[in-house]
Amino acid sequence: MSPSPGPSSRVIALETHDIRFPTSRELDGSDAMNPDPDYSAAYVVLRTDAGDGHEGHGFTFTIGRGNDVQVAAIDALRNHVLGRPVADLCADPGTLYQDLIGDSQLRWLGPEKGVMHMAIGAVVNAVWDLAARRAGKPLWQLLADAEPEWIVRQIDFRYLTDALTPEEALAILRRGREGADERRARLLERGFPAYTTSAGWLGYDDEKLTRLAAQAVADGFRQIKLKVGADLDDDIRRCRVARAVVGPDIRMAVDANQRWNVDEAIRWTKALAEFDPYWIEEPTSPDDILGHAAIRRAVAPVKVATGEHVQNRIVFKQLLQAGALDIVQIDAARVAGVNENLAILLLAAKFGVPVCPHAGGVGLCELVQHLSMFDYLAVSGTTEDRVIEYVDHLHDHFLDPVVIREGHYAAPTAPGFSAAMRPESVAEYTYPGGTFWAADPATQKGQAA
Amino acid sequence: MSPSPGPSSRVIALETHDIRFPTSRELDGSDAMNPDPDYSAAYVVLRTDAGDGHEGHGFTFTIGRGNDVQVAAIDALRNHVLGRPVADLCADPGTLYQDLIGDSQLRWLGPEKGVMHMAIGAVVNAVWDLAARRAGKPLWQLLADAEPEWIVRQIDFRYLTDALTPEEALAILRRGREGADERRARLLERGFPAYTTSAGWLGYDDEKLTRLAAQAVADGFRQIKLKVGADLDDDIRRCRVARAVVGPDIRMAVDANQRWNVDEAIRWTKALAEFDPYWIEEPTSPDDILGHAAIRRAVAPVKVATGEHVQNRIVFKQLLQAGALDIVQIDAARVAGVNENLAILLLAAKFGVPVCPHAGGVGLCELVQHLSMFDYLAVSGTTEDRVIEYVDHLHDHFLDPVVIREGHYAAPTAPGFSAAMRPESVAEYTYPGGTFWAADPATQKGQAA
Repeated sequence: MSPSPGPSSRVIALETHDIRFPTSRELDGSDAMNPDPDYSAAYVVLRTDAGDGHEGHGFTFTIGRGNDVQVAAIDALRNHVLGRPVADLCADPGTLYQDLIGDSQLRWLGPEKGVMHMAIGAVVNAVWDLAARRAGKPLWQLLADAEPEWIVRQIDFRYLTDALTPEEALAILRRGREGADERRARLLERGFPAYTTSAGWLGYDDEKLTRLAAQAVADGFRQIKLKVGADLDDDIRRCRVARAVVGPDIRMAVDANQRWNVDEAIRWTKALAEFDPYWIEEPTSPDDILGHAAIRRAVAPVKVATGEHVQNRIVFKQLLQAGALDIVQIDAARVAGVNENLAILLLAAKFGVPVCPHAGGVGLCELVQHLSMFDYLAVSGTTEDRVIEYVDHLHDHFLDPVVIREGHYAAPTAPGFSAAMRPESVAEYTYPGGTFWAADPATQKGQAA
Repeated sequence: MSPSPGPSSRVIALETHDIRFPTSRELDGSDAMNPDPDYSAAYVVLRTDAGDGHEGHGFTFTIGRGNDVQVAAIDALRNHVLGRPVADLCADPGTLYQDLIGDSQLRWLGPEKGVMHMAIGAVVNAVWDLAARRAGKPLWQLLADAEPEWIVRQIDFRYLTDALTPEEALAILRRGREGADERRARLLERGFPAYTTSAGWLGYDDEKLTRLAAQAVADGFRQIKLKVGADLDDDIRRCRVARAVVGPDIRMAVDANQRWNVDEAIRWTKALAEFDPYWIEEPTSPDDILGHAAIRRAVAPVKVATGEHVQNRIVFKQLLQAGALDIVQIDAARVAGVNENLAILLLAAKFGVPVCPHAGGVGLCELVQHLSMFDYLAVSGTTEDRVIEYVDHLHDHFLDPVVIREGHYAAPTAPGFSAAMRPESVAEYTYPGGTFWAADPATQKGQAA
């Protein structure tokens, strides 16, 4: 696991960057709750004195205003990280994760939710990036190579044991090793199935929807997704247009981005049923476990999916206990990093619910592919009914961008968590001082913030 | 509702202050999850150009580190508030509340939870303070004098209508008016019942516990509360000591501050049952609705209480729907201010569950008394089984501190929300530049943060 560092090397810097892309100007990413997002990242870089050239990169994804608050939250974690021995940190990221979620004063600001929790996720993910780089492995491989006992030690079972005990987690991981070599070969050859949301943003007109949906099928995707929830007549028209383009065999998910009350979600989803939606995503508040359960009972056989805004493992636990979900949508940067997502993957496996990650945004595809590939190799052992969201925005800002081939994510081979941004992108889109924003008239008038 | 302002007067400043008190040095406030809190406030002052001398004061309570993050989150709301017409703002605080929780970019940081949600609460509460000052009424009276229709308009029913509709809320408020005049007279004469936690901090030894518990009974309190959850043998000893001091007729609540898993909570609470605890508070994660329901089924007749860390109205809704609570513990500064607490009071009334607010911290007693008094006058109509927590710390830093008489909160008579701190306290405890911290050796070594 841990390569040969200078045994005394330590973390010497935690840098933060407020990076914002002006995506609202093209209505990329527009949905019923988020009409004009400026996709942004509160970005963190860990530096060490190991002299091996390795850094750790991580980030929280936001959609514009408030990215500065997220940066302030990451800065508040600096004293927990500086001075840590690099070898220890990388051999056991769980120790830092436990220290961060266990800081009683910072915990008051959550607990384990919102700004402070996402900040912890950014820092923890940066440590995993560093660990994988130093190990010379892509993160999915580092995780898949690890001993089941070590994986279990990376998880905080507090508040989970009524649904998943460490012993059960260990049994799942031990079973998961069976056939892993064949699956690894298949993963490297085929990749992991993806679906695309690029056609379905709410701000696109029917012509653009038609063109992009046809392109998605031509590109080999077997599932697309449409944003819904702002206007029912529009949604019926757009679903009809899209279904006509893709035909009956392509799965078509719809996504309401939390727009509805429970009764409204049921009514609206039933009104779209004739177009055979595969899942309804975020039909209501991500906090509403009982609401999701009621919706799922009412709209079957349409499946219910949620997770991109689910705050932590405790809410995922209850969504599974309550039978509220058909699909678990993990997000790489909403919860407290890889460690908490390991718990969520194991919860999903315990309850037999497939994981189809949320992605898109800034760098979320780059991160989350590693977790699904680990799930395939070492936890669920299958890609059946598993797809990772894909959105074709902003990948060119990353040093190790995702590669999509025939509707599949190709397995990354570069060491790390694919989290590092290009230095020139950081320089251009740092807010408000980067070259793009400094030259933007809206920035100068104080309107962009 | 709105007094006679200059019709064109506007909000001209939103000031923030990072205020921290060194409470960890006395172990005041110590419990099983929070061993060394430095009680703090991210404090906000709204100023107008009305020339009437009125300001609006509000704050988020934190326990030290991260108070700066909370200040940054309040600062991120500034542009929503500056320039608002004061008369409109005070005539309808619900408009600002909706705008703040509806800012789609900021909403991504929650939604409606954690740092950003508490920041909204601080700003919204400052507006209510300003509105009550300008109306010349204490907040409880402003609310109790308001039309039921106006109160209903202050509430966001999104995600609530499966449990509480606007029509049901209106009916509760209309019924609540019956007998309000007599209750008001009684409130002004007797006050609202309190219970005290001052005896029961985990860091206090048995001698201090004995002395303070006896003092509580002598002071007229009918309920005390002990912190538990760190060590079962200690808890058994402390409960035995306290029960022996107060006798069988005083209610004795216990509070685990989220320390336990579900099974552990059940075991531990049953082990304390011989001391007749009135309620077990925060037995597990505040996010664990189903966990609380399981604990409640198992530990009855011991009641289950929670709420100080419940993030929003959606989680309170489910705690009530799931039959997970005997006691709703609202907190004045955790959710998005008065508006969201109005929703929670009405949810509790709909489900017939008594509200016993969390208080203590910095200024939480000062704020929340107004909400319980409104609940008594206009919603539940009773003080039976209702008590407001009281902790005798830090009140001297407020200009209109709570007054406790014979175990009751005396109804405040000064206009406003009792939220304003003394200017000299702000100057002394501003972190790190205030006179106290600047002179503190730990600050100079960078240890206090």
